[in-house]
Amino acid sequence: MRVGVLGAGQLGRMMGLAGIPLGLNFTFLDPASDACAASVGRLIHADFDDADAFCRLAACVDVATFDFENVPQRSAQVLQKIRPVYPSPEALGACQDRLHEKDLLSSLGIAVPAYFPVNSRPDLLAGLEKHAYPGVLKTRRLGYDGKGQVIIRDQEDLERAWQKLGDFELILEAFVPFEQECSLIGVRGIDGKIKFWSLTRNLHVDGILMVSRAGGFDDALQLTAEDIMRRLMDHFDYVGVLTLEFFVLDGELLVNEIAPRVHNSGHWTIEGAETSQFENHLRAITGMPLGSTVMKSEALMFNWIGQLPDRDRLLAIPGVHWHEYGKTARPGRKIGHASVTAGTSAGLAENARLAADVAGGKFPLLLDSIF
Amino acid sequence: MRVGVLGAGQLGRMMGLAGIPLGLNFTFLDPASDACAASVGRLIHADFDDADAFCRLAACVDVATFDFENVPQRSAQVLQKIRPVYPSPEALGACQDRLHEKDLLSSLGIAVPAYFPVNSRPDLLAGLEKHAYPGVLKTRRLGYDGKGQVIIRDQEDLERAWQKLGDFELILEAFVPFEQECSLIGVRGIDGKIKFWSLTRNLHVDGILMVSRAGGFDDALQLTAEDIMRRLMDHFDYVGVLTLEFFVLDGELLVNEIAPRVHNSGHWTIEGAETSQFENHLRAITGMPLGSTVMKSEALMFNWIGQLPDRDRLLAIPGVHWHEYGKTARPGRKIGHASVTAGTSAGLAENARLAADVAGGKFPLLLDSIF
Repeated sequence: MRVGVLGAGQLGRMMGLAGIPLGLNFTFLDPASDACAASVGRLIHADFDDADAFCRLAACVDVATFDFENVPQRSAQVLQKIRPVYPSPEALGACQDRLHEKDLLSSLGIAVPAYFPVNSRPDLLAGLEKHAYPGVLKTRRLGYDGKGQVIIRDQEDLERAWQKLGDFELILEAFVPFEQECSLIGVRGIDGKIKFWSLTRNLHVDGILMVSRAGGFDDALQLTAEDIMRRLMDHFDYVGVLTLEFFVLDGELLVNEIAPRVHNSGHWTIEGAETSQFENHLRAITGMPLGSTVMKSEALMFNWIGQLPDRDRLLAIPGVHWHEYGKTARPGRKIGHASVTAGTSAGLAENARLAADVAGGKFPLLLDSIF
Repeated sequence: MRVGVLGAGQLGRMMGLAGIPLGLNFTFLDPASDACAASVGRLIHADFDDADAFCRLAACVDVATFDFENVPQRSAQVLQKIRPVYPSPEALGACQDRLHEKDLLSSLGIAVPAYFPVNSRPDLLAGLEKHAYPGVLKTRRLGYDGKGQVIIRDQEDLERAWQKLGDFELILEAFVPFEQECSLIGVRGIDGKIKFWSLTRNLHVDGILMVSRAGGFDDALQLTAEDIMRRLMDHFDYVGVLTLEFFVLDGELLVNEIAPRVHNSGHWTIEGAETSQFENHLRAITGMPLGSTVMKSEALMFNWIGQLPDRDRLLAIPGVHWHEYGKTARPGRKIGHASVTAGTSAGLAENARLAADVAGGKFPLLLDSIF
């Protein structure tokens, strides 16, 4: 079966690596001529609003999906007229605008941080008056990895934030003094069957994910998160992998973001779960039965941002698995990750500490908050 | 780092899948224009004796290896003048001729079945007189999957065998009434460090591997096999993965064949071992530290020969992992495999029986001899 993927970054590349053994072959569409998924498939080099290129893609695939949620919904709709597109352009569209996303979640009875649409400076003042400082001012569209958002703690922050973001459609969110951040990744098949991986704890620095650790949450929280995702999936008649990012506050979950795709916080599933998020996403969209999402070992992931640490010293540590994306290094760019696995939590802590010491930077300190 | 691979079959394809996350990229050389490793790298379409093509390959890689041991030794030597080639053309050459292979093993004090070079009909008669019936007459070169060999049980067999193979350089081997067949796969780094996976039991039908099950042998046999392989590896100053196929007779090991490469009986390592044979082969030839070869679950493999069974019914069975090679189906051709994993031996037996029932053919009966 031939799979088309809109976007050819590392998520597409890892889809290809998971899908080739399933007998799938891949055609990617991406505006970057050096997009890194090209090593596992054909690359159509085109903009995401190039209707002609979308038709060319449709002509050589049986089903299409995304590795990137900011593909214009209209382009996905064009494609959907010719070939099945999973998840649907409707689900994609709903996750492209933070305001619509929050409205949808609220309408489904799912808790989110207090929020307030901001179309003008008076809106912003009214929002801050209603919810009090601190707040987080965010662009409604095209934000990722902490881009397009500013925390407002006082009047001075407010002026700076407005200067920076005032030209965009905005949303003001109440700042959540969370205890933890975590994410749930699930997958829903064409037949409506659903499976979830274990909740994963996430540590961000400057808005960018640095470390994820799978599992360790109590069953009640896992079930609550699964219930939330199930409501969303059924609402969209969703097909494929879906990710929810949560704040944990007073032991309760607030949804921070929806990502209608495989997710950075699920990379540990490649080595740590019976079936990876990439394989199950492909199984879902091609109509194969879903694989078990059970954890087969304790697992944790380090993200490599901007530069790669010493690969060979890391590979010499037990349980370390290396993933390089073949991307040019640039500050702030995700260019690889490593998973660490072990049979026990104590073993994981030991291996992870060795790895963090080699990786350096903030990794040793981040680990202290996990173990 | 850029890796060149002579041969672009399923072994090359699985090398690519293991190597891309390590940051490696691949160029394959193969006489088949539809060679299946092309989905994970560039393909130079050329014969294995095309010196010009070998120079083109050398120009775009940093190191070269094989997915196929019948590449002419001379071609490998041409390549080696320009780029490092692992394993060395000497090791490759030694495994291309059954007579030289057996002479080498004997000279290292490693037990092999009784053998006798056959260059004429009188040689064959003399060999049978010396070793008695039954014997196995084999071509010295280019045999694989049971091709180029005939069992001789009586005078009639002898005539048929001579008619079929008399034009080749031959070797007569004593037929070994083995209790089991097994293989050991090991890997040696550029620094001389060696790791071994667990002995794997192999079941063949008509000379073609059908089922492999990892582990289950006693420690003494494992250590004996490791000692044999270590002697061979050190003799060759070997770099990369090496495979030895053994007969087990009266609890002792006789070497049947040497394969200077990753091997079909090691496909279970993808899901069943901490590091797969493919990843460790690449780590070895590129100078990275070797990964742990420890079994992380019970594991077994079914080979798909000539046709694929019902993929979706198999994927619905717990612990089943699917590997399709993207090759056109032809009778007798290896076109895919599935691994079955489980936490316990009883769990493996249960999952494997379900899978064998779906796969049909001889698989259910073959399993009876394992569990």
